[in-house]
Amino acid sequence: MLHILDIVGTAVFAASGALSASRKGMDIIGFCLLAAVTGIGGGTLRDVLLGVQPVSWLMQPGVILLCFGVALVSFFTAHHLESRERVLLWADAVGLAVFCVTGTQHALAAGASPIAAVLMGAVTATFGGIIRDVLCNEKPLILYKEIYVTAAAAGAVVYVTTVPFMPDPRIAEILGLLTAFMARAGGLVASLSLPTYAKRPARPQETGRP
Amino acid sequence: MLHILDIVGTAVFAASGALSASRKGMDIIGFCLLAAVTGIGGGTLRDVLLGVQPVSWLMQPGVILLCFGVALVSFFTAHHLESRERVLLWADAVGLAVFCVTGTQHALAAGASPIAAVLMGAVTATFGGIIRDVLCNEKPLILYKEIYVTAAAAGAVVYVTTVPFMPDPRIAEILGLLTAFMARAGGLVASLSLPTYAKRPARPQETGRP
Amino acid sequence: MLHILDIVGTAVFAASGALSASRKGMDIIGFCLLAAVTGIGGGTLRDVLLGVQPVSWLMQPGVILLCFGVALVSFFTAHHLESRERVLLWADAVGLAVFCVTGTQHALAAGASPIAAVLMGAVTATFGGIIRDVLCNEKPLILYKEIYVTAAAAGAVVYVTTVPFMPDPRIAEILGLLTAFMARAGGLVASLSLPTYAKRPARPQETGRP
Repeated sequence: MLHILDIVGTAVFAASGALSASRKGMDIIGFCLLAAVTGIGGGTLRDVLLGVQPVSWLMQPGVILLCFGVALVSFFTAHHLESRERVLLWADAVGLAVFCVTGTQHALAAGASPIAAVLMGAVTATFGGIIRDVLCNEKPLILYKEIYVTAAAAGAVVYVTTVPFMPDPRIAEILGLLTAFMARAGGLVASLSLPTYAKRPARPQETGRP
Repeated sequence: MLHILDIVGTAVFAASGALSASRKGMDIIGFCLLAAVTGIGGGTLRDVLLGVQPVSWLMQPGVILLCFGVALVSFFTAHHLESRERVLLWADAVGLAVFCVTGTQHALAAGASPIAAVLMGAVTATFGGIIRDVLCNEKPLILYKEIYVTAAAAGAVVYVTTVPFMPDPRIAEILGLLTAFMARAGGLVASLSLPTYAKRPARPQETGRP
Repeated sequence: MLHILDIVGTAVFAASGALSASRKGMDIIGFCLLAAVTGIGGGTLRDVLLGVQPVSWLMQPGVILLCFGVALVSFFTAHHLESRERVLLWADAVGLAVFCVTGTQHALAAGASPIAAVLMGAVTATFGGIIRDVLCNEKPLILYKEIYVTAAAAGAVVYVTTVPFMPDPRIAEILGLLTAFMARAGGLVASLSLPTYAKRPARPQETGRP
């Protein structure tokens, strides 16, 4: 199940990267690069920190082709979306939920302490999005007032604490994944329903300009 | 002594990360993430570049718990500080001084050439703060006019050049540490006493606005 | 030939880093750090992802000394240049062309699939410049409308597809290098001749504000 989850997480993060490229008006190659870096960035950092090298995508062209495929589809369809930002945020939320669980799993499998595994899960889940936002010169999502890192950390904690007691580790995976997704979704829904307040909360001095 | 210095450097960098989280109005988990990433970021990059993997904090929960503890204390006390930015800058200065020496030491121990060890010391000392500032969407400290990288490089050079002649390497450690801290402190004091000029030195075209 | 190309790419990227430091008014140590990080950043990421550790410059002080030398020369001559930004952009273009080929070569030599090698070439070629721009708080070059990542990817694709059919791999190197450089140069020339339109193309919704 880990393998399927990794593929799903990669695909949705790749979509969020392609949508960021779309919002910046990049060309098709820019779409492919952003999709690939966002999709495999978190897992790559995880592999490097765990000492799994060369990183897995180097010998597995399938993962990169998946990202490129997502980029291509996004390139020809993204402008039909009513709100690319909204789709980007939800794709990012799914990727966050998936990667906080798989990042924690990989770290535990490599012998990490539970608390380090939780940190690794949170870092893996957020790193792809951080690169995406840095490359696109956007304010990183972790800085918004909504729950973000907290959702990833909650999913990782739920997985770490429940997996020893489950007959099948997949149940713990689903619990962790749902915890993270629902926490993040709650933050998103609350934020999206209040767009004007959520958009510019911290710069009162700018709104006062003529 | 290396071990104690690493702990001190991690703790003060973690404090600077938590204070950045505080200035951005993050929640307690955001405090913990920022504290951990800032506290262990420099050492992690150093370990990865030296090929020390998996990185040390993966099997040592103590380092992460230290960062989380610092984050917790900061979360409940940071708003009582008169100037969080000032405390952040001084914590960052102590971390800079400690990590430029320990980064240089680790690199020399791994067989690096003296000049590479100095570069590694400077990179280790500044990287945690760079991640912190990127995650918080702040202008990186190394861009300010005050002495910053120069202080880290000076401390590393003093350590590398004095350690072969000392009966006890701890003397060289202290010399390097004091050099870096005093250089950085000089820059800070000079800058803090001239806050308005230090804030916006490089954009004359903006000051002309009404 | 790989070795010579790596040296050339490092030197021109170091020059672009030093020019960025110059535009930010840094001191001589800031010049050296920016030159070194930009010059060896792409190759360092490549080594880490390929599992070549400790990274090569740790035992080869020559590469770092080269960057420092470039930084010194830039420090004393940069202010004589008519347009530091223009020289920076052309140095970056040469480095991009060189590193997309050598990055691809190193990845293939490490057993990467051709498609992963192309991605590695593009990432290696752009990463040094990305760090430079992040450290200098500049909008990353890959975000500009001109061809940038596309040029690096084109050079890598040409190298990967032609090298099996060439009697001497150096011919494929030159073909890839020229492809990347000419694509990037075309984008630069077109952009430099149309500065006003190239600056703010993607935010029509903002220009409509009162």
